[in-house]
Amino acid sequence: MNKAALNPNLEQLKVDFLYHFGLSSADDLRGMFGDTKHVAMMGSADRAYTFAQKLHDQLGDPIQYFGKMPELQFGKLGKVMEHIWNLLSVNLGYPVPIGKTERYSMYKVGDTISVSHGMGQPSHSILLHEVTKMLHYAGATDFKYYRLGTSGGVGVEPGTVVVADKGLAPSGRAEYVIDVLGEPVTLETDFDPDLAQYILGVRGNIEAVLGSTMSADDFYTVQARLDGAFCMITPEEKQNYLQKLHGLGTRNIEMEAAAFGAFCKKMGIPAACMCVALLNRLEGDQVTSTPEQLGAFSDNPQQLLIQYIASTRQGQKVA
Amino acid sequence: MNKAALNPNLEQLKVDFLYHFGLSSADDLRGMFGDTKHVAMMGSADRAYTFAQKLHDQLGDPIQYFGKMPELQFGKLGKVMEHIWNLLSVNLGYPVPIGKTERYSMYKVGDTISVSHGMGQPSHSILLHEVTKMLHYAGATDFKYYRLGTSGGVGVEPGTVVVADKGLAPSGRAEYVIDVLGEPVTLETDFDPDLAQYILGVRGNIEAVLGSTMSADDFYTVQARLDGAFCMITPEEKQNYLQKLHGLGTRNIEMEAAAFGAFCKKMGIPAACMCVALLNRLEGDQVTSTPEQLGAFSDNPQQLLIQYIASTRQGQKVA
Repeated sequence: MNKAALNPNLEQLKVDFLYHFGLSSADDLRGMFGDTKHVAMMGSADRAYTFAQKLHDQLGDPIQYFGKMPELQFGKLGKVMEHIWNLLSVNLGYPVPIGKTERYSMYKVGDTISVSHGMGQPSHSILLHEVTKMLHYAGATDFKYYRLGTSGGVGVEPGTVVVADKGLAPSGRAEYVIDVLGEPVTLETDFDPDLAQYILGVRGNIEAVLGSTMSADDFYTVQARLDGAFCMITPEEKQNYLQKLHGLGTRNIEMEAAAFGAFCKKMGIPAACMCVALLNRLEGDQVTSTPEQLGAFSDNPQQLLIQYIASTRQGQKVA
Repeated sequence: MNKAALNPNLEQLKVDFLYHFGLSSADDLRGMFGDTKHVAMMGSADRAYTFAQKLHDQLGDPIQYFGKMPELQFGKLGKVMEHIWNLLSVNLGYPVPIGKTERYSMYKVGDTISVSHGMGQPSHSILLHEVTKMLHYAGATDFKYYRLGTSGGVGVEPGTVVVADKGLAPSGRAEYVIDVLGEPVTLETDFDPDLAQYILGVRGNIEAVLGSTMSADDFYTVQARLDGAFCMITPEEKQNYLQKLHGLGTRNIEMEAAAFGAFCKKMGIPAACMCVALLNRLEGDQVTSTPEQLGAFSDNPQQLLIQYIASTRQGQKVA
């Protein structure tokens, strides 16, 4: 992270409440997150849990749990039982979330955070602000951010992971526009090119390509699907639009990459975005694969990141 | 709903996969949702569960569960146990979600759906498309949509519910802009004025005001908070911006109202947006209330909607 990019106002806060995590700078963030080197972010809590478990199973990294035994009083019996249950879970190899789980679910396994970001750029942006402040208070250094997601492919087959060179707005421009004081401000959205190439180099059997990722603030209309509750376009307009995006280098469409790239570029955090195509949008709109196929597809970006993390460690083998 | 607004392409779909619900038009949507009159949407799964329970406890509406006993085979023992557990829960008064819970959590109690929409306009828009298609396939009629949320107040005290007359963009204009084929299209964002007045009329002891709700695609920068990971504005610029919004009639800032209003207006669905202020942004940025206070605050919009639903039924009393 580029420390100069960090908000200087943070120094004046006595305590910073990381509201959406249920944590604050008064917690022992240094003890919990000071050693963090990798932050893997993905849409759903289920996937964040699965990825945490894979880190443990395949890399042997320890599942971390920072809960403390509450004082033994009658009114706290529920909390005591929860603590014992969590200790048991962690020791049996089942990850336990840190902080509250109402908005995001966060796990720590070895030097890696696995956390959900919900759907869409706004939801992801809250997570990015809070996890970055958290790692700053924790004194963590040299960490990288990754987004592991699902997407609609544009001219790639289902199952292919698109490692993004940059995020695109629906216009096809490589930008993310935010409103500052009600006026649009344009941010750059390119990802770390060396990191993307390195990741592609360790892909092994996983089908993966470099391409641009278009981010939409909607699943239906903005992604030019014809099957929303309302529809404002014709099939011909849709096809022309997707072909235009393809011509600009777009290989998939999802809902987070541009904001993610913009945040990381602004903060000087090396970042990679790896989203698997669940379908080829040039051929249809509906996600019709079986749950088993979808499970196998969404496994691909996770597996790719595990192979990358292993490759950065001397002598590390993926089990 | 205005049937003419509905996407005519839906008629040509053999089966419509409501991907983010884990349901499809091949399910018995008519049996499950045909009688729906109210759809209450809120950010988190926890709140959707709580609201479902309140509907049952305070209005006596039956918790509905549509699971079927799986075939008795060894490989399905887990599913059988889950089904028995769900039946037990529902009979003891604990709501059980319908469909998958990876993205949204949906409950049905009497003629009301209680469902989570995640954070931000993109996440909420997916829910709006899919729940509207679902109710169309279910043959439901004369239903209304509500958003129950939390927000930063602008010149109102914490605990006050703002019933929105319209959603505003960060510019202060009453509009929601979506990209169609990569070009911006502006949608109107006003809510049903009669419904808003009716709801205010049944507020009883709950502090509630009519006002405009500004929707931001971010919690930090776009809402002019000074405590994000980065900060692009001065305290003076922030104060001037919030005062400008206040002068335009803004009484709170959150992340969904404008898109919600735009969708409902476009589809001709009567809708109301009721968000409680957790703090007064003219006085600060951080949410510093205790968990108990926050719980009491976020109870207010739920209670207001329960009072409204009761008032629409002859002889209904709130317990």
